[in-house]
Amino acid sequence: MRSAPLGFFDSGVGGLTVVRAAQQLLPDEDIIYLGDTARVPYGSKSPQTIREFAEQDVEFLLSHGVKAIVIACNTATAHALPDLQKKFELPILGVIESGVKAALADPSTDRVGIIATRGTIRSHAYQHALAQEKTGILMHEQSAPLLVPLIEEDWLDHPATEAALHTYLDPMVEKGIDALLLACTHYPLLIPKLQSFLPEDIRLVDSATTCAEHLKAELTRLDLLNDSPDPGSLQIHLTDLSEQFENLAKRFLANPPGKIKRAVL
Amino acid sequence: MRSAPLGFFDSGVGGLTVVRAAQQLLPDEDIIYLGDTARVPYGSKSPQTIREFAEQDVEFLLSHGVKAIVIACNTATAHALPDLQKKFELPILGVIESGVKAALADPSTDRVGIIATRGTIRSHAYQHALAQEKTGILMHEQSAPLLVPLIEEDWLDHPATEAALHTYLDPMVEKGIDALLLACTHYPLLIPKLQSFLPEDIRLVDSATTCAEHLKAELTRLDLLNDSPDPGSLQIHLTDLSEQFENLAKRFLANPPGKIKRAVL
Repeated sequence: MRSAPLGFFDSGVGGLTVVRAAQQLLPDEDIIYLGDTARVPYGSKSPQTIREFAEQDVEFLLSHGVKAIVIACNTATAHALPDLQKKFELPILGVIESGVKAALADPSTDRVGIIATRGTIRSHAYQHALAQEKTGILMHEQSAPLLVPLIEEDWLDHPATEAALHTYLDPMVEKGIDALLLACTHYPLLIPKLQSFLPEDIRLVDSATTCAEHLKAELTRLDLLNDSPDPGSLQIHLTDLSEQFENLAKRFLANPPGKIKRAVL
Repeated sequence: MRSAPLGFFDSGVGGLTVVRAAQQLLPDEDIIYLGDTARVPYGSKSPQTIREFAEQDVEFLLSHGVKAIVIACNTATAHALPDLQKKFELPILGVIESGVKAALADPSTDRVGIIATRGTIRSHAYQHALAQEKTGILMHEQSAPLLVPLIEEDWLDHPATEAALHTYLDPMVEKGIDALLLACTHYPLLIPKLQSFLPEDIRLVDSATTCAEHLKAELTRLDLLNDSPDPGSLQIHLTDLSEQFENLAKRFLANPPGKIKRAVL
């Protein structure tokens, strides 16, 4: 069982930012990644549809013999995590708990801004998770539906991105925040832009690294760490193969991925 | 057979701009509309995936007893129309032929700009269709992937849309065009913005009206016009129901739609 691969899934290729963090922390683990690019995005769709898609994603990973699953997608975590944990027996982790822990890692953090897809914001999953961890937190939630298409277009430094960021972030910056939680696995690619866009004293919080740490702790606790001496491999499966997604996948990873396969769910 | 409904499908709700034009020209016809909102957009996906989705869309409409089908989506027309026409026996019309006829309606048109999704542009379907209709046409094709999300966000007059339009249109305006073909069924919502953005002498061409005219001519030719005295009805089916899509559907239609149903493909 320990030598079985880890499964990761996301609506698209954004979840590879979490895979990248996991590869650094758990270099011996084999990873199977599923990106549901034929139906991307999930963030604008209804909870019921997202739950149905997420269940099919889990079934696909199970058919590849994974020992644990990471939902590397905030929208799917927000709407489907509890249902999936009830329905399936293997360990399933989401990204929200890790994001919240990362946001509160600095004890002086009292005012947190959250940007995410419309689906994640509507679920109020971050609000609930933050309130459970710490009382008296001031939260500003903002759905930012244009950021994923802008990032996928590689318009990281385009005036359209600048204009969208003003609309999304100016109101919460004016009210005052200590940290900004990037609650979508696509957003880490915007970090350089956000660092120049936001006042210096606002801490940027990205859940990829804390999610990988959480995963390592869980695998250790459950005695599931791979003890093979071989370096881990990465297999990427996408439900739609297109040049654009393959190029995007390369931008999200530190090392070029091998041959990407087409998955049929 | 004449009293059977017409079927329309699109990846999402943009195709309702074509329905709206058809309702004006063919007020007696019943219409069944399918929007594949669970898998929207099609424009960024591969030809193979688009063909699979389009075939499922047609099967759904056939199960509702339609007498003819309009592919109210440029991307699906570009990649799937010939295959669908071969596979199914009923009349199936796309939007590209109509768009091209509309662009060339003014005989002085020699230089045509085309904006569309990445999928439509990659297919070169408009280029081929234009070249078949008229020799010596100068064409400037530009994929404009951000326009659909910007329109869906209702950012019709937002600085981000202005910035995106500069990137997409400035190069072709500089080279000189007589007409701009709006080769995506979402784009008619941008017409007021485009009218103020572009030089006055550039004609905007929207395929919705010519597509409705083409449909009427085909129904007449095939003796399929509805001769019932009752006014036509509209039934909308979406593969994902969300508040956002329902609101969007209202913006695309002249009259508020009735209850929208969830379709399972």
